[in-house]
Amino acid sequence: MSKSLFVSMAFLLFAGSALAGQPYGLVIHGGAGNVTRERVAAAGEKAYRAGLEQALAAGYAILEGGGSAVDAVEAAVRSMEVNPLFNAGVGATLTRDGTHELDAAIMDGRTLKAGSVAGIQHVKSPVGLARLVMEKTPHVMMIGEGAEAFGKAQGLELVPNDYFRTPAQWEAYRKLKASQASPTTKDTVGAVALDRRGNLASATSTGGMLDKLPGRVGDAPLIGVGTYADNRTCAVSCTGWGEFFIRTVVAYDISAQMAYTGAPLAKAAQASLDKAMKLGGDGGLIALDAQGHMTMPFNTKGMFRAFHLSEGGTGVKLFGTE
Amino acid sequence: MSKSLFVSMAFLLFAGSALAGQPYGLVIHGGAGNVTRERVAAAGEKAYRAGLEQALAAGYAILEGGGSAVDAVEAAVRSMEVNPLFNAGVGATLTRDGTHELDAAIMDGRTLKAGSVAGIQHVKSPVGLARLVMEKTPHVMMIGEGAEAFGKAQGLELVPNDYFRTPAQWEAYRKLKASQASPTTKDTVGAVALDRRGNLASATSTGGMLDKLPGRVGDAPLIGVGTYADNRTCAVSCTGWGEFFIRTVVAYDISAQMAYTGAPLAKAAQASLDKAMKLGGDGGLIALDAQGHMTMPFNTKGMFRAFHLSEGGTGVKLFGTE
Repeated sequence: MSKSLFVSMAFLLFAGSALAGQPYGLVIHGGAGNVTRERVAAAGEKAYRAGLEQALAAGYAILEGGGSAVDAVEAAVRSMEVNPLFNAGVGATLTRDGTHELDAAIMDGRTLKAGSVAGIQHVKSPVGLARLVMEKTPHVMMIGEGAEAFGKAQGLELVPNDYFRTPAQWEAYRKLKASQASPTTKDTVGAVALDRRGNLASATSTGGMLDKLPGRVGDAPLIGVGTYADNRTCAVSCTGWGEFFIRTVVAYDISAQMAYTGAPLAKAAQASLDKAMKLGGDGGLIALDAQGHMTMPFNTKGMFRAFHLSEGGTGVKLFGTE
Repeated sequence: MSKSLFVSMAFLLFAGSALAGQPYGLVIHGGAGNVTRERVAAAGEKAYRAGLEQALAAGYAILEGGGSAVDAVEAAVRSMEVNPLFNAGVGATLTRDGTHELDAAIMDGRTLKAGSVAGIQHVKSPVGLARLVMEKTPHVMMIGEGAEAFGKAQGLELVPNDYFRTPAQWEAYRKLKASQASPTTKDTVGAVALDRRGNLASATSTGGMLDKLPGRVGDAPLIGVGTYADNRTCAVSCTGWGEFFIRTVVAYDISAQMAYTGAPLAKAAQASLDKAMKLGGDGGLIALDAQGHMTMPFNTKGMFRAFHLSEGGTGVKLFGTE
């Protein structure tokens, strides 16, 4: 055996039992609640595309390097949490009281372990906190001050609540207060990934719905509703009017259709979304199966979304007409 | 037409389109976490049986009178919330910090509307608050102070946190602190009902797991996990080590099996419980379908449980050997 071949083989082994021929990839969304040309015009379409590309690159680099799907979805979501254009972390929408309350979840499709947080006001990265709940507690879901005390004990960075505030979200809140119109911001950010070992993961993070009552929790942090991953079926992250997603348990319903009826991913995802939307509301979702198929259905004017698949190319899209 | 026949027919119409021949009934549980002869000995087996009978009677009377499944499950759960023997409301277990944080949910299988609360410290009836979230807000889930502020605004009774404390739960907490043993209290109370109009409903309420980190939320208030109801399939309420129920979305998984594979209720419920228990933990559940079939599987030594079915008799059971 030549020395270079030996080195190559050793590298492959070192890369950690990545499966030869195993497709991998990442799909992300930046919300489907209010993706209109008017909204996008303020910061410019380029800024939204760049934000999605940056989040996509952060997660995809991890997958390419042989990293885990869990690490990839966390990295992609963290990137959108610090981006003021998306309704998660910085740029979160406001509650009826003018405060920020953030929700997030993450799930590992290999182990079915999951972490979830809601009502977060001071932990800088809600998805990072959700990951620690998954890995450092016997629990799945933690909320409010208890969740933040745990995060603080774990050494996470705390910020004042107005760290999350942006002029654009404040303006939307002020306008809504003045007009008594219906809230339009119901965005979420999320990511689903398949890694080189064939493991799926999902993560979601959100500021929730504009003008929500303080204490309201949407679908994003609910395992099986806004976030789910199971290696045997798929990984899903939802966005939209969460109440309607909760009542039909959208993410798990997709997984269940695949498991119990053998439905392919895209068909199952569309059926589950349709079922929720029949009750009311609007929104969309992204999903990826263990064979690397993706789907990104939505019934809104647009959904910020991007994908990079080892066997399916890459793309960034905003509107429904693309 | 004779006058008496006319009166009878008018009464049937007045009873509100109750379906002739429609079976109806109620199944309740008072937890499966720690049902042993040792635990039951303290208050006496009779007291537990009387508590279950009282909750059963409160809910069944509503069904018999033509009332709704939603009203019946709320009444049954309220009865167990004020009973100090069960881990919900008065008698709730303690967090690691020695406080009480209560969770509850309710769901209407006719409309798929649902209400859910978590991290409740002062609202006397968590299930009553969940019902108001369902009926008086555009939301499904509310947590912590925001949920309590909403309850207060709705005129609900608030109590000091130690209203929920009982000597028995305090002693269990104190013993655990002294011994560093594993917590054994993971009980929940719940009810599922089918009314004379063929509508299903489910409700669950709990103090959660003894020694839980403050902020921890279990399966009980999560729609699709500890609580679910859909007229087309079934109504479910779970009890046990919630983290394992969350990861496999137990309640909705039962509904999904029935919808997608045509599995009968008992088979679907056992399969879903087995799937969760394969991951770890222990527990049980109660479920009822639209034809009035019930099932009450558990993998613990016992589960406080009782049923009254218009076409299936009535019974109260505590242990696995009954």
